[in-house]
Amino acid sequence: MNARIQPRFCREFHPVGTRVAVGDTVFGGMAVQVIAGPCAVESTGQIHQAAQAVARAGATALRGGAYKPRTSPYSFQGLGPDGIDLLADAGAAAGLPVVTEVMAVADIARVRARADVLQVGARNMQNQPLLRALGQQRTPVLLKRGMCATLDELLWAAEYVLAGGNDQVMLCLRGIRTFGTHTRNTLDIGAIPVLKAQTHLPVLVDPSHAAGKRELVPALARAAVAAGADGLIVEVHPDPDQALSDGRQSLCPGGFASMMQELSTVAQAVGRTLG
Amino acid sequence: MNARIQPRFCREFHPVGTRVAVGDTVFGGMAVQVIAGPCAVESTGQIHQAAQAVARAGATALRGGAYKPRTSPYSFQGLGPDGIDLLADAGAAAGLPVVTEVMAVADIARVRARADVLQVGARNMQNQPLLRALGQQRTPVLLKRGMCATLDELLWAAEYVLAGGNDQVMLCLRGIRTFGTHTRNTLDIGAIPVLKAQTHLPVLVDPSHAAGKRELVPALARAAVAAGADGLIVEVHPDPDQALSDGRQSLCPGGFASMMQELSTVAQAVGRTLG
Amino acid sequence: MNARIQPRFCREFHPVGTRVAVGDTVFGGMAVQVIAGPCAVESTGQIHQAAQAVARAGATALRGGAYKPRTSPYSFQGLGPDGIDLLADAGAAAGLPVVTEVMAVADIARVRARADVLQVGARNMQNQPLLRALGQQRTPVLLKRGMCATLDELLWAAEYVLAGGNDQVMLCLRGIRTFGTHTRNTLDIGAIPVLKAQTHLPVLVDPSHAAGKRELVPALARAAVAAGADGLIVEVHPDPDQALSDGRQSLCPGGFASMMQELSTVAQAVGRTLG
Amino acid sequence: MNARIQPRFCREFHPVGTRVAVGDTVFGGMAVQVIAGPCAVESTGQIHQAAQAVARAGATALRGGAYKPRTSPYSFQGLGPDGIDLLADAGAAAGLPVVTEVMAVADIARVRARADVLQVGARNMQNQPLLRALGQQRTPVLLKRGMCATLDELLWAAEYVLAGGNDQVMLCLRGIRTFGTHTRNTLDIGAIPVLKAQTHLPVLVDPSHAAGKRELVPALARAAVAAGADGLIVEVHPDPDQALSDGRQSLCPGGFASMMQELSTVAQAVGRTLG
Repeated sequence: MNARIQPRFCREFHPVGTRVAVGDTVFGGMAVQVIAGPCAVESTGQIHQAAQAVARAGATALRGGAYKPRTSPYSFQGLGPDGIDLLADAGAAAGLPVVTEVMAVADIARVRARADVLQVGARNMQNQPLLRALGQQRTPVLLKRGMCATLDELLWAAEYVLAGGNDQVMLCLRGIRTFGTHTRNTLDIGAIPVLKAQTHLPVLVDPSHAAGKRELVPALARAAVAAGADGLIVEVHPDPDQALSDGRQSLCPGGFASMMQELSTVAQAVGRTLG
Repeated sequence: MNARIQPRFCREFHPVGTRVAVGDTVFGGMAVQVIAGPCAVESTGQIHQAAQAVARAGATALRGGAYKPRTSPYSFQGLGPDGIDLLADAGAAAGLPVVTEVMAVADIARVRARADVLQVGARNMQNQPLLRALGQQRTPVLLKRGMCATLDELLWAAEYVLAGGNDQVMLCLRGIRTFGTHTRNTLDIGAIPVLKAQTHLPVLVDPSHAAGKRELVPALARAAVAAGADGLIVEVHPDPDQALSDGRQSLCPGGFASMMQELSTVAQAVGRTLG
Repeated sequence: MNARIQPRFCREFHPVGTRVAVGDTVFGGMAVQVIAGPCAVESTGQIHQAAQAVARAGATALRGGAYKPRTSPYSFQGLGPDGIDLLADAGAAAGLPVVTEVMAVADIARVRARADVLQVGARNMQNQPLLRALGQQRTPVLLKRGMCATLDELLWAAEYVLAGGNDQVMLCLRGIRTFGTHTRNTLDIGAIPVLKAQTHLPVLVDPSHAAGKRELVPALARAAVAAGADGLIVEVHPDPDQALSDGRQSLCPGGFASMMQELSTVAQAVGRTLG
Repeated sequence: MNARIQPRFCREFHPVGTRVAVGDTVFGGMAVQVIAGPCAVESTGQIHQAAQAVARAGATALRGGAYKPRTSPYSFQGLGPDGIDLLADAGAAAGLPVVTEVMAVADIARVRARADVLQVGARNMQNQPLLRALGQQRTPVLLKRGMCATLDELLWAAEYVLAGGNDQVMLCLRGIRTFGTHTRNTLDIGAIPVLKAQTHLPVLVDPSHAAGKRELVPALARAAVAAGADGLIVEVHPDPDQALSDGRQSLCPGGFASMMQELSTVAQAVGRTLG
């Protein structure tokens, strides 16, 4: 690396924390924001039910995948462009901005036409052509940490977006791969304070992919808020047992509502608010 | 393993959470207990100052090592029997029970004559002759998870103590070894809810060894309490920069007092009290 | 995954080992093939010198990067299309087919016009749009294992290419990320016999990225051949100390020639030949 | 650590490789020595059959556990003192020195009365009272690397023995714990050349515990010899499917004999001999 260039992700470059505004939702401020919704958009009914439920419980953005990176090419790959439309309609009806993954440069234009935040998944954290292309547009980006990426690698991946002039980048921790098997991944809770010291970018946590089992999600979510996370992204499905993907780690609407009440108390305990 | 023997660590074996009473301090109840003190007992003045400071800030037990497992045989190895006496005297003066490590079967009798809780360090988690010997006496045991031990291995290590008839066992998480280097170890926060579901034994967390840097300790401590830990064990030194070991991760008395105030609020947010 | 579809990577699907012919070089047969050359194509002189040197020492293909996935966007990113031309010219002059990385769907046509094997790097192992696009053409693909990918994930990534009808896929191990720091990555030598049992695809090893230090490369290369690898891909630079990337792990021509002699003996010891 | 003390494990301290002579078997010389035998001594017949079989196939020492560190206290724990006697008798009858594990300081005297090499298992690598006690006697020690120990920690553990004056220490790699599950542990093959450069102590490899499955043992054993190991320790059982422990990773006598022939060829390819 060229030691003479100070990277844009550094706190020294931008001492005040970056705020990313998405509609009425501001990430990186005093409020801890919760993005919630299903792993994948499956149908009009499913995404509308999910959107209404998470809005009612206090979520301030809706998630839902239309382009799904699946281990097998024969698994359900998402609804594609139709899924983006269903998601955007459901978000609008519930008054929530929407967050969705983009996997290919060729899809960016279509996705950003309707989505408020473009997510880069863990598998694509170092897909540099994709990151560069996202730097050339101005929709906010939610960049997930790769399963074995160091924090330096995560920050330098963000730099690929920032270097293009898009300064609306949020980082998201979702668990790392270790020898442990009692959770799907190991939530690296210590990365939160380390990142908050090194960068001005908002730091979110995905407790669902870390946990892998819905009964563990609330404890991880509370821990993330207590450790200083600026937001969460949580999988919620109207009927988790029927989900086409990630059902085991998805909360039902009732479980999500309970968790939000707990989180509100924890957020206050650390001097913040929820949503 | 013999599938017909139900291990004593299982919640099914003992549905109500085990409470370990050490003087007035009860681990495993509604109160989150904080054990604090220096890595090693270094001198009369140092351990008395530490004991007074942590007691004033609300700690309910005093820690301090007299037998230190060091990577190099040429490093400071602790004061041995004299250290145990200094620790016990300082605890008595401050009104705190004391917790200290025991590394060898031959030292158990001497250590338990003056200590209230016998700690088994991460390096000795599967030192089975030591565990068996601790099962033959009745002083409570604090068993730390090995750096790459699975939760099953931790629970079965506890079984070596329980099988001997000593049911006063507490588990302690202190971070696992992963590819990450931004913290000394990776605090496996998800292990807290998993263990609480599987076992009736109290679950403590050592945020100091996980963090490796004192500025990260409060965030990890808050996360542990939010995730459901029954207690913490924290390194505090009257003058961390002069500590003979682990100074970088030791809080000063003022930093510890601030942290305790934060933790008290977080404990209440999850329906518990501190100390 | 759909349990009814038998994946094409399985040995059951194709009991005889797949042979990938690239000019006169056949991967997956009795001969252990060695691909060698610099990390990056830097100049006409550099790549011609490298090509001549590795051909003389017995390599049967030339490697060299023109599109480089670098951690920082400000590091040297490769010569792009010009690099591809320089590489192809140097390979032709030395009588060697050429292997080079492709990072973006948009670059595939241009790269395959001049390259004999298209490499997918570890960071892109699960870049599924790229894998699908490579499945739609017929140039052989060298797919590197991601730094924390399981073998199942590697095989299913290959399936994305195979499913499109391109059955010329080779797998390449290059070390996994663990707690160890004495090598750049940990060469997972046990993955070789496991993959050879599960799949008919050729299995190569990159000892250079595993080692991270040139003095360790020969021992890892010997081990890989002894364990059953079908080939190696090795970094060789005419003047490693002046390399623009990966110099520390690049062999000089003399070191490479010595290693090839050792490897020839080891290949014979396990019933194979070199090149 | 005290920077002024040069540790005894360093090559600088002792530039010529240490040779450990055990009867006619010399570890650390040109010959690659193979220690073989069952995980545990189970009966007179079993250990005699194993001893005869491994001797016939070219092994130069007999292994067998009498004190077994098991995850559960209810699993078979070994025959204890009787097992030591059976092992020593079987070794004498087959003309082989014997290697066995010692877990407790209290057992050292009894075990060394009949065993030729005292093994310290991975779980006890940092059991410092045990290491110190082994430093006070003169029987050779085989020290296994802990499952997540760094090479520095392994070398400093050896220093605990060396510092006492026992310079007959051999190191043994047996796989590290990573995210991988296709082998029981991940054989860190790169540690062999790194250790050989840093220390004068012989470096052995245990392919059985690394593999976890007998069909993978020969490939790992060949790789270890090719990478420069000074010896191997291999599990062989007369009837693996009836073994009381580790049967899945134990070779049968015929499989061991075949492997020894392959290893002999590989040893010659790297300029050494077998046994």
